[in-house]
Amino acid sequence: MDRVKTFIQGFDDAIGGGVPKGHVVLVCGSPGTMKTSVAFSILYNNVKAGSKGLYISLEESDEDLKGAMQDFGMTGIDDMELYILDVSKIRLEHKEEELNKNWLDIVMKYIEQRVKVNKFDLVAIDSLAGLYSLNKLENPRRELFHFFGFLRSLRATTFLVSEIPGGDDGRLCMFDEDFLSDGVLLLRTIEKGDSDVQLRIRCVKMRRTEHDRGYYPLTRNDGRFQIARTAAQ
Amino acid sequence: MDRVKTFIQGFDDAIGGGVPKGHVVLVCGSPGTMKTSVAFSILYNNVKAGSKGLYISLEESDEDLKGAMQDFGMTGIDDMELYILDVSKIRLEHKEEELNKNWLDIVMKYIEQRVKVNKFDLVAIDSLAGLYSLNKLENPRRELFHFFGFLRSLRATTFLVSEIPGGDDGRLCMFDEDFLSDGVLLLRTIEKGDSDVQLRIRCVKMRRTEHDRGYYPLTRNDGRFQIARTAAQ
Amino acid sequence: MDRVKTFIQGFDDAIGGGVPKGHVVLVCGSPGTMKTSVAFSILYNNVKAGSKGLYISLEESDEDLKGAMQDFGMTGIDDMELYILDVSKIRLEHKEEELNKNWLDIVMKYIEQRVKVNKFDLVAIDSLAGLYSLNKLENPRRELFHFFGFLRSLRATTFLVSEIPGGDDGRLCMFDEDFLSDGVLLLRTIEKGDSDVQLRIRCVKMRRTEHDRGYYPLTRNDGRFQIARTAAQ
Amino acid sequence: MDRVKTFIQGFDDAIGGGVPKGHVVLVCGSPGTMKTSVAFSILYNNVKAGSKGLYISLEESDEDLKGAMQDFGMTGIDDMELYILDVSKIRLEHKEEELNKNWLDIVMKYIEQRVKVNKFDLVAIDSLAGLYSLNKLENPRRELFHFFGFLRSLRATTFLVSEIPGGDDGRLCMFDEDFLSDGVLLLRTIEKGDSDVQLRIRCVKMRRTEHDRGYYPLTRNDGRFQIARTAAQ
Amino acid sequence: MDRVKTFIQGFDDAIGGGVPKGHVVLVCGSPGTMKTSVAFSILYNNVKAGSKGLYISLEESDEDLKGAMQDFGMTGIDDMELYILDVSKIRLEHKEEELNKNWLDIVMKYIEQRVKVNKFDLVAIDSLAGLYSLNKLENPRRELFHFFGFLRSLRATTFLVSEIPGGDDGRLCMFDEDFLSDGVLLLRTIEKGDSDVQLRIRCVKMRRTEHDRGYYPLTRNDGRFQIARTAAQ
Amino acid sequence: MDRVKTFIQGFDDAIGGGVPKGHVVLVCGSPGTMKTSVAFSILYNNVKAGSKGLYISLEESDEDLKGAMQDFGMTGIDDMELYILDVSKIRLEHKEEELNKNWLDIVMKYIEQRVKVNKFDLVAIDSLAGLYSLNKLENPRRELFHFFGFLRSLRATTFLVSEIPGGDDGRLCMFDEDFLSDGVLLLRTIEKGDSDVQLRIRCVKMRRTEHDRGYYPLTRNDGRFQIARTAAQ
Repeated sequence: MDRVKTFIQGFDDAIGGGVPKGHVVLVCGSPGTMKTSVAFSILYNNVKAGSKGLYISLEESDEDLKGAMQDFGMTGIDDMELYILDVSKIRLEHKEEELNKNWLDIVMKYIEQRVKVNKFDLVAIDSLAGLYSLNKLENPRRELFHFFGFLRSLRATTFLVSEIPGGDDGRLCMFDEDFLSDGVLLLRTIEKGDSDVQLRIRCVKMRRTEHDRGYYPLTRNDGRFQIARTAAQ
Repeated sequence: MDRVKTFIQGFDDAIGGGVPKGHVVLVCGSPGTMKTSVAFSILYNNVKAGSKGLYISLEESDEDLKGAMQDFGMTGIDDMELYILDVSKIRLEHKEEELNKNWLDIVMKYIEQRVKVNKFDLVAIDSLAGLYSLNKLENPRRELFHFFGFLRSLRATTFLVSEIPGGDDGRLCMFDEDFLSDGVLLLRTIEKGDSDVQLRIRCVKMRRTEHDRGYYPLTRNDGRFQIARTAAQ
Repeated sequence: MDRVKTFIQGFDDAIGGGVPKGHVVLVCGSPGTMKTSVAFSILYNNVKAGSKGLYISLEESDEDLKGAMQDFGMTGIDDMELYILDVSKIRLEHKEEELNKNWLDIVMKYIEQRVKVNKFDLVAIDSLAGLYSLNKLENPRRELFHFFGFLRSLRATTFLVSEIPGGDDGRLCMFDEDFLSDGVLLLRTIEKGDSDVQLRIRCVKMRRTEHDRGYYPLTRNDGRFQIARTAAQ
Repeated sequence: MDRVKTFIQGFDDAIGGGVPKGHVVLVCGSPGTMKTSVAFSILYNNVKAGSKGLYISLEESDEDLKGAMQDFGMTGIDDMELYILDVSKIRLEHKEEELNKNWLDIVMKYIEQRVKVNKFDLVAIDSLAGLYSLNKLENPRRELFHFFGFLRSLRATTFLVSEIPGGDDGRLCMFDEDFLSDGVLLLRTIEKGDSDVQLRIRCVKMRRTEHDRGYYPLTRNDGRFQIARTAAQ
Repeated sequence: MDRVKTFIQGFDDAIGGGVPKGHVVLVCGSPGTMKTSVAFSILYNNVKAGSKGLYISLEESDEDLKGAMQDFGMTGIDDMELYILDVSKIRLEHKEEELNKNWLDIVMKYIEQRVKVNKFDLVAIDSLAGLYSLNKLENPRRELFHFFGFLRSLRATTFLVSEIPGGDDGRLCMFDEDFLSDGVLLLRTIEKGDSDVQLRIRCVKMRRTEHDRGYYPLTRNDGRFQIARTAAQ
Repeated sequence: MDRVKTFIQGFDDAIGGGVPKGHVVLVCGSPGTMKTSVAFSILYNNVKAGSKGLYISLEESDEDLKGAMQDFGMTGIDDMELYILDVSKIRLEHKEEELNKNWLDIVMKYIEQRVKVNKFDLVAIDSLAGLYSLNKLENPRRELFHFFGFLRSLRATTFLVSEIPGGDDGRLCMFDEDFLSDGVLLLRTIEKGDSDVQLRIRCVKMRRTEHDRGYYPLTRNDGRFQIARTAAQ
């Protein structure tokens, strides 16, 4: 089976070589857990390796996103086949029209056309909550089933940045998108002792993959993410 | 009493030889706990042993499901008496008609006819939440009583994949289907120490069976599930 | 005071010799805690000792219930003064009429007549949630007060199987029936160490009785329930 | 200051000699914590010592209550100045009229008249939840302020049995009656180790009293309650 | 800066010499934590030292309050410049008029006039929940902003007794008045070991003050409150 | 990248030299965690170093705020390019007009004009909850997206004081503003042992910054905040 590497050093081995092509994968975490950086770096490193990527930003501007990623060491984005759709700018410029019922449809049609015409292999949507704020979901489970069906029909591999609302009640998303997705990558900060806080990644779910289920410390090294296996407590 | 084996090595002994024929059994767990693989493998291995099975997939496509199961070592599905009903495809193709009130009835009538005509011994529905999203339940307890009554009237042994919504509040399902079902198999990941996560299975309930109530580590070996008894902590 | 034995070996001593005659007693527990078996065995063993019993099953069929109890060693039910009212069958056969407002009244009138005519000493209702699903309770506390008043007026000793909804928030029932009842027997599984799960029974409340309040491990031996006092932790 | 003894051996010392005369005191606890026995025994022992008491039972019958108290060793109730008002019987006999709006008023007027005419020193209401089920409270805080004002205007010392709904969230009552009351006695079972359960009493609040705030094990001895100070853990 | 002493021995040092003049300070705690005694003693001791105080009691009568405070050793209240406004009496006498919309306004106008005419330096309102029960707050945050603005405009130092509803979820008040107030004094009982319960005070917030944030055991000695620093655990 | 120092000694190093210019940063904490002092001191110290600052106070008066800050050692505010907009005074003076729908717009237009005309580099809004109380948010996520877009369009660096509602459920704000903001500074009191309470600061999130994620004890020394790294527990 073809797999899309995450290029998180050491992590691809833990998930059977990468994310199966065509999967819809949640990248979830609370604020400050580097969801955007992880999702963007997966697209960036795949595009560098020859793929074509579409990054859809609902709430952060094109410039801010690019700047942040360049700081991180991901340079030369403008010369790559990595297109950033800045929905945030469109929203700010068309504030008054946002109450229009068909915004979510417009975004979906736009994605569909771009994926078909430009033949993007990878798509990222940052974030689901931003997307949902465009429209009120009447029956979330049913509408999300069709939204996930739409994403799968694109045949691209899709990463959905999903914000975990505060609290520690174990929910990974707002409307049980974890059931509908093919994979779930969880980013989480864990308090160590009284004052230290460590960032970790866990593959909670990955269809068609015999994956490890443990938590791995996630660090950055020379502009790339990497994991280390923690010693037993 | 006739029993349907789960073919989870070691587990059938723990539940008195298998699931009593004709039972309606929940297979519940949070995302990434292999509910689908466990339910499917029960049908697959029984069909290999001479039964006839119907697997009803509400949200995952026929192809994805088969592919995942083949990866797992369950090959030759197309040549077996294991029929997969891909409701997900029907839903995606008839999105506009989904608001039609009688969808749940249509699915039920379809199941009834197929079970009677094709004489399926085993039925699986994956998942209950997917099924519920087709119709709004007015009085869940009453409607589910009749849905379970319908399933029992089929005389087949039925497995219902049930997604446990996030959080850790101990609920096993959405509408207390655990009270109405004849058996409950719980899949759960348990954090071991600081970074390890282990998959376990537990028989919470099994009518007409003197079953063990403990948690067993669940692993896969050569395409088959098996359990091991953990050492005391 | 006349007492009805539970015939759970060792437990009657812990509750002063048995349940005071005429009491309305909850038998509560989450799924898989053997509520039905415990309630039924109390009726079965009392009928064997000369009483007359009425077991009202709201959601499990007559055949399934009898079969399960026979497996358990309770044989010869058909030849005993232990009558099973299979409301579940009536409900399935009269699905369309179930929205009729007076169903709960019909069940109550039926019980009343049978108790008076057949002079049943013991009545069990399995389960309260099944009963409630027949009618919407407008003011649960007031309506349940009258329902408990009705049960007490029968002068039989009554056991009400009460399902504890999932979670671990300490509630024993849905509408605080524990306040209205004369006794509460709690069945509970307790996780021992990392993988073992033990079944226990506790007498939470028993009016007119100087009872022990501790948890007792509950086991089956030769078709009878029995308790053991656990060693101190 | 005049004080009403609880006659719980050892406990009166812990609360400055007893409950100040004229106080309105909650006796709260979850089911099976002997709230009724504690409240009744306070009235019983005071009446034996020369007071006059009115016990208002909303949900338990006169006969059941007396029987239970006699079992407990409180004999000769019928020959004492301890009057039991069996509202439960009236309710069962007038079920149809219960939707009448002024039931709570009727009970209050009855209490007022009896206290004035018969000069009762002590009044107990068992229970508050039973009382509330007679009428819907529109603005609980305001209506309860006036209900407590009414009780204080009687100049009797009043004990209100208050059922703590299940769970362990620390609430002592339904509508923050603990703020309005002059005293709060809390009955609670505490699990000791893995299988033992102990009954305890605590004086949470007692206006005009320099009271101890700790938990005391509560036991019965020769028909009387008594406390023991537990050893430090 | 001028400061109002609390006269809780040892505590004024912990909060920089006392409460800054003109502050609006919450005194919060669950039932039985001596909120009233603490608030009243602050006014009493300041009045003895030459200030003028107005104590507004919403739910406890003038007589009960005075009696309780006298027990406590605060004698001679009637001869001091410490005026108690018994709103509870007015409410009980005007029960029918309480649904009148402008009751909160009437209380506020009364306070304003009395503070201006009688030049009270200190005002206490016991309790906020009692005050709120007079009127329904449409937009609590906005209305409370203006209520706190009104209190600050009086130029008196104000103490607001605030009841913490049961449970242990960390909230200190009903409508986040802690954000609007200048200071928060928290009274809390802490269970020590298995049976002991200790009363503690903590200064959670005090604008314009470099205060200690720890918990101090609070005891009474010869009619005065005092604190002790606990040894490290 | 240009960065705005927090001037919290030791902390700027932990966040890569300071807050990136133009960021919108939450300063969140429960009552008494010095949010206002921290936010104000950032503006004060930057203005002293040559910037221009606008501090918008929604609920605390100009005088109280200045007084508090002067106590703290921040003197000479009136002679600096640090302007305080006292919305609280305007609100109290125009109480009746507050129900006017466009108040939030008025505040936003005012900020916009002032930032453009006076060329403020830093803006602080104290607090978000105060701001929200001016208007009801119909669709918080959407409206806040535009509010944050507005703030970013100002090109100033903005600090938003955000009150964490009571409880300990892990939420950092009311409407997930943490997702929309570029940075999150969390102030928190941590109970040490049984009686000590320590103030700490943590950088939860800071876009475009490789920051430390741990908790630092926060203390004041000669009018300046500083941090210390705690020893491992």
